Amino acid sequence: MRAAVARAGRLVVEDVADPVPGPGEVLVAVEACGICGSDLHALHHASRLVEVARRTGTPTTFDPARDYVMGHEFCARVVASGPATDGAPVREGDLVCSLPVALTPSGVEPVGAYSNVYNGGYAELMRLTAGMCLRVPNGLDHRRAALTEPMAVGRHAVARAGVTPADAALVLGAGPVGLAVVAELRRIGVETVVASDYSPARRAVALAMGASAAADPAREDPVEVWRREDGRRPLVVFDAVGVPGTLMAAVLAAPAMSRVCVVGSCMEEDRVEPLIPQTKQLTIVFSFAYDPFEFADTLRAIAEGEIDVAPMITGTCGVDGVPAAFEALGRPDEHVKILVEPGTPGVQVHPVGASG
Amino acid sequence: MRAAVARAGRLVVEDVADPVPGPGEVLVAVEACGICGSDLHALHHASRLVEVARRTGTPTTFDPARDYVMGHEFCARVVASGPATDGAPVREGDLVCSLPVALTPSGVEPVGAYSNVYNGGYAELMRLTAGMCLRVPNGLDHRRAALTEPMAVGRHAVARAGVTPADAALVLGAGPVGLAVVAELRRIGVETVVASDYSPARRAVALAMGASAAADPAREDPVEVWRREDGRRPLVVFDAVGVPGTLMAAVLAAPAMSRVCVVGSCMEEDRVEPLIPQTKQLTIVFSFAYDPFEFADTLRAIAEGEIDVAPMITGTCGVDGVPAAFEALGRPDEHVKILVEPGTPGVQVHPVGASG
Repeated sequence: MRAAVARAGRLVVEDVADPVPGPGEVLVAVEACGICGSDLHALHHASRLVEVARRTGTPTTFDPARDYVMGHEFCARVVASGPATDGAPVREGDLVCSLPVALTPSGVEPVGAYSNVYNGGYAELMRLTAGMCLRVPNGLDHRRAALTEPMAVGRHAVARAGVTPADAALVLGAGPVGLAVVAELRRIGVETVVASDYSPARRAVALAMGASAAADPAREDPVEVWRREDGRRPLVVFDAVGVPGTLMAAVLAAPAMSRVCVVGSCMEEDRVEPLIPQTKQLTIVFSFAYDPFEFADTLRAIAEGEIDVAPMITGTCGVDGVPAAFEALGRPDEHVKILVEPGTPGVQVHPVGASG
Repeated sequence: MRAAVARAGRLVVEDVADPVPGPGEVLVAVEACGICGSDLHALHHASRLVEVARRTGTPTTFDPARDYVMGHEFCARVVASGPATDGAPVREGDLVCSLPVALTPSGVEPVGAYSNVYNGGYAELMRLTAGMCLRVPNGLDHRRAALTEPMAVGRHAVARAGVTPADAALVLGAGPVGLAVVAELRRIGVETVVASDYSPARRAVALAMGASAAADPAREDPVEVWRREDGRRPLVVFDAVGVPGTLMAAVLAAPAMSRVCVVGSCMEEDRVEPLIPQTKQLTIVFSFAYDPFEFADTLRAIAEGEIDVAPMITGTCGVDGVPAAFEALGRPDEHVKILVEPGTPGVQVHPVGASG
């Protein structure tokens, strides 16, 4: 099969051996797989991730010096079943999503991220644990279904931060993570949601996905936009960027006694002034990924139209186009979410209109 | 009166004009005033505090370039009443504590910290807002009563962190702040309280004040001590030190999904690796000071014997001894809490046994 292989910090598209489903596994053909900002990070910071896993006591067999195929935001069609899949909840022909996790006799193994064993969706085929697959309901198309994973990240962050409809929110960063937070905030009924981003294109997408206002931090303090829009409900500030400096930006934006939720992943060391969150008596909630129930219910919410992810989908490419897509995503005003659709020919990224 | 004046980053003991109580104020004679670690910081970082106050939107009239007299952990006797104090809850002869705050027509003004207007307890006399004074109940002695303020800091931190008797706690640092946290944890019924400190003397005081175990971080990982002592209840980790590095030490000690409470004040910039609290999904709660109800009930709790503060009181000195006391407190194995008792002669610190 064709695959975009991560090798020594670079992406190399080549033909590799097809995966073979083991006991309890199905073989799936990728229909769409979103490119995640964390994969752009992982390509260059993979050894850092392994180091953090080791220091936080998370076992991992991942060796970034060996080949791996990323892509953990996938929607795929079951094309074959491996042995011992008789009672499986899915069968050949089903369109499915799955948490990017495989259940194996030796433990839980990530799929498409930090694994040399299970390739991700930047490839034509994958093997998945049959029992982890969720059938895509309601005739939802494969593109929207592929957004389940990143939208679940936003849902989890909003839940971790304990946001209720009585709160207001300021979301710093309108990349996919920030947009997922915006969509979830609106889904649960938060009225004032200010999204802040330097990119006009991303601000427009934030408004399309339910932000009540968008702020350009180059022109005005996003907190002032919140004051103008609301200013009286308790404000929860989300750091949905995760580069050095954004944690303190969120801390400085947060009113006294409020909550900051860190959902963007900062791979590097950062500098903080602890006296500022302390005199403000802030609570900083760190959020990571989601739980299986949040994932499953996010797929349901998208399928039932509670969240419209279409405005986020700005481009598609084939497997051969993955390196170009990674480059395009480094230019934040160009794209939000690019989906890899292995059937797409060529090495280019094809733009998708807001109609999805 | 005799006063230890902070002047250009140094303490100068000299005779200054007696304070004159204004409308609604009483004049009090200091009986005991604890020396707070934050005063040691403030002497050198006062301009930093003003800068943080400005950046966090807290109005202040404090000018560290002008003289000021610190000391905000005081117990004092009312010696005279100013005008307009007829309905006041205290009268001449009463032993009182007060939040270190004065109510003035122009607003709330700190007393004995970050104020050029209201001197603190490193002096023979002070003026206080009569309506803020709490009579010391139950015949409690002035030394224990003077510990109300620092113990209220620990009480507030434990409340901010949402600790319940179903939790366990690890307290990093057994200085006055850490000891106040330890005492409050035991008061509310937390069974496993591990206190960690490099100083053998401070570890001994922590055990005397209710820690169930004390860890020497030079010899063993305090988390291992918690595992040995408990290891199954949810762990809350307190950073009760507040110097660069201790926030990340608390983050590394905290189990996944747990809470870290920052109650020690770090005046300097610190470095963090946000990916570590994020992958652990920690909640970091910053705590500062206390509210008036917590302050009043802490005085009650000490007076009713719920907290025995005597093991913390390791020395006393007169006003002339304040500079020597500041120096002694820079050597952490020598003292925990030194009380200024203006009646005490000489420039030395006098040791106090554990009997109080």
